Amino acid sequence: MMKDIDLSAIKTPADIRKMNVEELTQLAAEMRGALMDKLSVHGGHVGPNLGMVEAVIALHYVFNTPEDKIVFDVSHQTYPHKMITGRMQAFTDPAHYDDVTGYTNPAESDYDLYSLGHTSSAVALAAGLAKARDLQGGKENVVAVIGDGSLSGGVAFEGLDYGATLDSNFIVIVNDNQMSIAENHGGIYDNLQLLRNTNGTAEPNLFRAMGYAYHYVNYGNDIKSLIEMFRAVKDTDRPVVVHINTMKGLGLAVAEADKETFHFSAPFDLKTGALLNEQHDAPEDYSEHFGKKMLSMMKENGNVVTITAGTPGVLGFDKARREEAGRQFVDVGIAEQAAIDVASGLAKGGMRPVVGFVSSFLQRAYDQFSQDIALNHQAATFVVFYGTMFGMNDETHLGFFDIALLSNIPGLLYLAPTCKEEFDSMLAWSVRQTELPVVIRTPGCVAVSNPAMQLLDDYSKPKYEIARQGEGVALIGAGLMFGIMQQAADLLAKEGVNVTLINPRNLSTLDTDTLDTLKGYKAVITAEDGIVDGGFGQKVASYLGESPVKVINLGLPKEFLNRYNYAALQQKCGLTPEQIAQTAINA
Amino acid sequence: MMKDIDLSAIKTPADIRKMNVEELTQLAAEMRGALMDKLSVHGGHVGPNLGMVEAVIALHYVFNTPEDKIVFDVSHQTYPHKMITGRMQAFTDPAHYDDVTGYTNPAESDYDLYSLGHTSSAVALAAGLAKARDLQGGKENVVAVIGDGSLSGGVAFEGLDYGATLDSNFIVIVNDNQMSIAENHGGIYDNLQLLRNTNGTAEPNLFRAMGYAYHYVNYGNDIKSLIEMFRAVKDTDRPVVVHINTMKGLGLAVAEADKETFHFSAPFDLKTGALLNEQHDAPEDYSEHFGKKMLSMMKENGNVVTITAGTPGVLGFDKARREEAGRQFVDVGIAEQAAIDVASGLAKGGMRPVVGFVSSFLQRAYDQFSQDIALNHQAATFVVFYGTMFGMNDETHLGFFDIALLSNIPGLLYLAPTCKEEFDSMLAWSVRQTELPVVIRTPGCVAVSNPAMQLLDDYSKPKYEIARQGEGVALIGAGLMFGIMQQAADLLAKEGVNVTLINPRNLSTLDTDTLDTLKGYKAVITAEDGIVDGGFGQKVASYLGESPVKVINLGLPKEFLNRYNYAALQQKCGLTPEQIAQTAINA
Repeated sequence: MMKDIDLSAIKTPADIRKMNVEELTQLAAEMRGALMDKLSVHGGHVGPNLGMVEAVIALHYVFNTPEDKIVFDVSHQTYPHKMITGRMQAFTDPAHYDDVTGYTNPAESDYDLYSLGHTSSAVALAAGLAKARDLQGGKENVVAVIGDGSLSGGVAFEGLDYGATLDSNFIVIVNDNQMSIAENHGGIYDNLQLLRNTNGTAEPNLFRAMGYAYHYVNYGNDIKSLIEMFRAVKDTDRPVVVHINTMKGLGLAVAEADKETFHFSAPFDLKTGALLNEQHDAPEDYSEHFGKKMLSMMKENGNVVTITAGTPGVLGFDKARREEAGRQFVDVGIAEQAAIDVASGLAKGGMRPVVGFVSSFLQRAYDQFSQDIALNHQAATFVVFYGTMFGMNDETHLGFFDIALLSNIPGLLYLAPTCKEEFDSMLAWSVRQTELPVVIRTPGCVAVSNPAMQLLDDYSKPKYEIARQGEGVALIGAGLMFGIMQQAADLLAKEGVNVTLINPRNLSTLDTDTLDTLKGYKAVITAEDGIVDGGFGQKVASYLGESPVKVINLGLPKEFLNRYNYAALQQKCGLTPEQIAQTAINA
Repeated sequence: MMKDIDLSAIKTPADIRKMNVEELTQLAAEMRGALMDKLSVHGGHVGPNLGMVEAVIALHYVFNTPEDKIVFDVSHQTYPHKMITGRMQAFTDPAHYDDVTGYTNPAESDYDLYSLGHTSSAVALAAGLAKARDLQGGKENVVAVIGDGSLSGGVAFEGLDYGATLDSNFIVIVNDNQMSIAENHGGIYDNLQLLRNTNGTAEPNLFRAMGYAYHYVNYGNDIKSLIEMFRAVKDTDRPVVVHINTMKGLGLAVAEADKETFHFSAPFDLKTGALLNEQHDAPEDYSEHFGKKMLSMMKENGNVVTITAGTPGVLGFDKARREEAGRQFVDVGIAEQAAIDVASGLAKGGMRPVVGFVSSFLQRAYDQFSQDIALNHQAATFVVFYGTMFGMNDETHLGFFDIALLSNIPGLLYLAPTCKEEFDSMLAWSVRQTELPVVIRTPGCVAVSNPAMQLLDDYSKPKYEIARQGEGVALIGAGLMFGIMQQAADLLAKEGVNVTLINPRNLSTLDTDTLDTLKGYKAVITAEDGIVDGGFGQKVASYLGESPVKVINLGLPKEFLNRYNYAALQQKCGLTPEQIAQTAINA
């Protein structure tokens, strides 16, 4: 047994380039141990990082980073990369666990080329870097690292297609861990399996067909094999794919056994895998609520189909529910555009498709929403998760751009329920009707109940709910913001100020009848859980622009915020009940 | 020689299913003749349709349409399809030439499944139709027809990937005419060439690698070969690709010789190919202007790179200019996402990339604009063509959604020049600076000169131009609308009303200093060449919402308009100078 390696002495890749294979193997073991310790306490992307420790070490060992350039796709597998590029302390010292983000970030290190959190873009980005090098007469290696299910995203193929035309050094590492977040589906993955089963020798070979030289590493967690292969392709003068077969979650028994659960995890017990802070009386979230709801709807109606683009868990479809749903549950893989087009085809074919999206990812398919759904009047339903300032707070995964994005598409009905009952009512209506494409935005993460909510039988026409009739000032709160506006109205009522409180329900078309009744008011205050620019409130401001009534639009600034504090942001935006009440009084 | 076929007797595909191969061949010849006559007089997609006459006849001959379902990708190759599905008169009788649109359209015929004009979606749409059939226990064939350069669009691969998982009938016809609009580039197309060169026998084979059974038809304009092949795959119980080698522009010598020019053409002389109505003193358009400008910039600076996603002509880069630009001109093929990511990589690598887009197509890459450009602060320049109500007027190609789409992305500077001089100034500045991603929208199609325009050295900060200082009413005209606002201001001046006239230049961030000076005005009227919802004017209305000044936002309705009359639409939107002047007076 080797003597221990002092992880804290690893400051740059130069420090590992002095090591021999035995030492590197020991380094990998110690890094893996540190990762497990941090992840179990802190949470994060477990499987993707544990599976890539050796490959990341071998990459930095063989390639002369940062002169040689590595673009990590999605970059949720770059914890080992951060450890050996000057940020070890953030993985070994609990006091510094929060010093780094969960993704590559140029603000942290010159070794990080991009801030990336959406999948499938690395190949095209790296192709651009390689083209820049060629035009400037440079000689550095350019490497894209892609995998973990990202290969099915269309832009990966666009990048591979263009990259093949580079008559120069261009290296694509395909990290094949046999998984996406959940299991993989699709023709691409069958080919990867065939290649694994034949030690990379089989034809047909997708990468060769795309114009790449192809190499296969069967032991993708063996440092020696990886180093040999990376050395063999280093300084290549043509586009090359290196397909490495790795094990997601390697070294952590619970993560090896249940790769889907441990793709990303909150703090957990290293032995049992049980979540540490799980509240057994925690309120139901919209994932769980939606999963139950859809499963029951699919059982009642064989024409209902639930679709995901690689994130079944977000839709509340764990393995058991997927099996129960059978052919009525479709996972197209990480391929948001196809998810929407398949839904369009299903709707055209007489089915009732419901697609679930993380807010930040639906923007990957705007053209399909516009052309293949809205322009073609296909009655599919889209449910948006984490479309809120209180959800994901990494700059790459923000959930507050979707209102501005989707509510301006002609013919696409954008509904914002304010509570669980209203969500259920809108979802049931949308699946029942066959005329309109409908987007329904879950209000925040927790499924809050409001049994008093006024429900409608038909949400096709904009019809605002006057939840409370007051005078002088109207508060219009969209989605989650309705509840906050309600609290503001309560505060005002205590002061003897009775304002009108409105739930707009529909964010894509104005209820001008209701807005007309507000023209004699002193002020109308709108609040939405999204950016103000391009959103709901500005439509109201525009419509009422010719009236003397003041209009104040509350919401988020048009900024890529990063790891922000929820309460501080709410305060900064004037979105607390107290602030809204004060704004109303000032008006 | 066969006797002539009476084209007018062809009412449905049933009428051709009675014919023998000799008659079908004669039918193809006569249809091709009619197409040439119409196209030369009327204009339209020449090459794509002339190349597909036989394949379309064979498809309807073999498959039992409309029960069997055919989704034509892009659908600009469906004139022959329209001829044999009840719309022959629109191709044989000049009085009826305008009866049909240039794309499939469900409003015209049950044989048209979708209104499609953007590429690469047909495979995923058809996969959805096939899945619907399977869940309902149907038996019809589902066919996707893709080609003409569309295969490089990422969603085509997403669709192929998912389609491969269908354990049932699913037929993809790949129309390989060896072209996109211009010549093809990329690893995919090298594989198609290899397959053509080997009569379909070579490995590697992209389609087999994706999990499809594969068949090749070398004579893709031979009806007999096509019928045999389509019969062989009809009622297949698994996913199949049929790769057909066709000739774009077949039968028209000038179109066979110059496939790029005759992809789409205005009316032309059938013998010489010369445009019939070409005005030799026609004013320069922005394509030509941009092409000249960029070529000169690239010659001056080896770091400048011009990028297109398959539409070099729109950027003013004909073959001669492409050759002159050499390695500094990049065509990634129809792959808008890759175009942006390659630009991002080039910028990161120290180059000065400029990407040109048709307004309607840039929406295919919103996520790349957001994540890989804006979030990552990559100083690339994007030039938008046909972003105007006076450009393309097919419902699939509308150019008035891009302001709402792009101006709400954080950190992306959206500039709207009002004339040629301002466009040049903004473009030169954008290429010079290295801090900001910038979108520049060409104002309409014709490059109108305004030598009096006030130019800036730096457009990074919002700074409105007060073109004329008046009082009481301010007219803010963005881009092309500035000139119309100017005419309105002239009309008002004649009536003794002196209004303030403003060119906002920047549509993404408000110049609040200037707007603050308008708070005491009676009215502010904004006009933009795009939809009002989510656009520039609504930002102004929101900002001024608390002030007593009236705000009136002029622009287009949020609708998918189809083949509209330009003047009538302008009138309907209140956007003529006379109407704007009247609106100002009323205010």
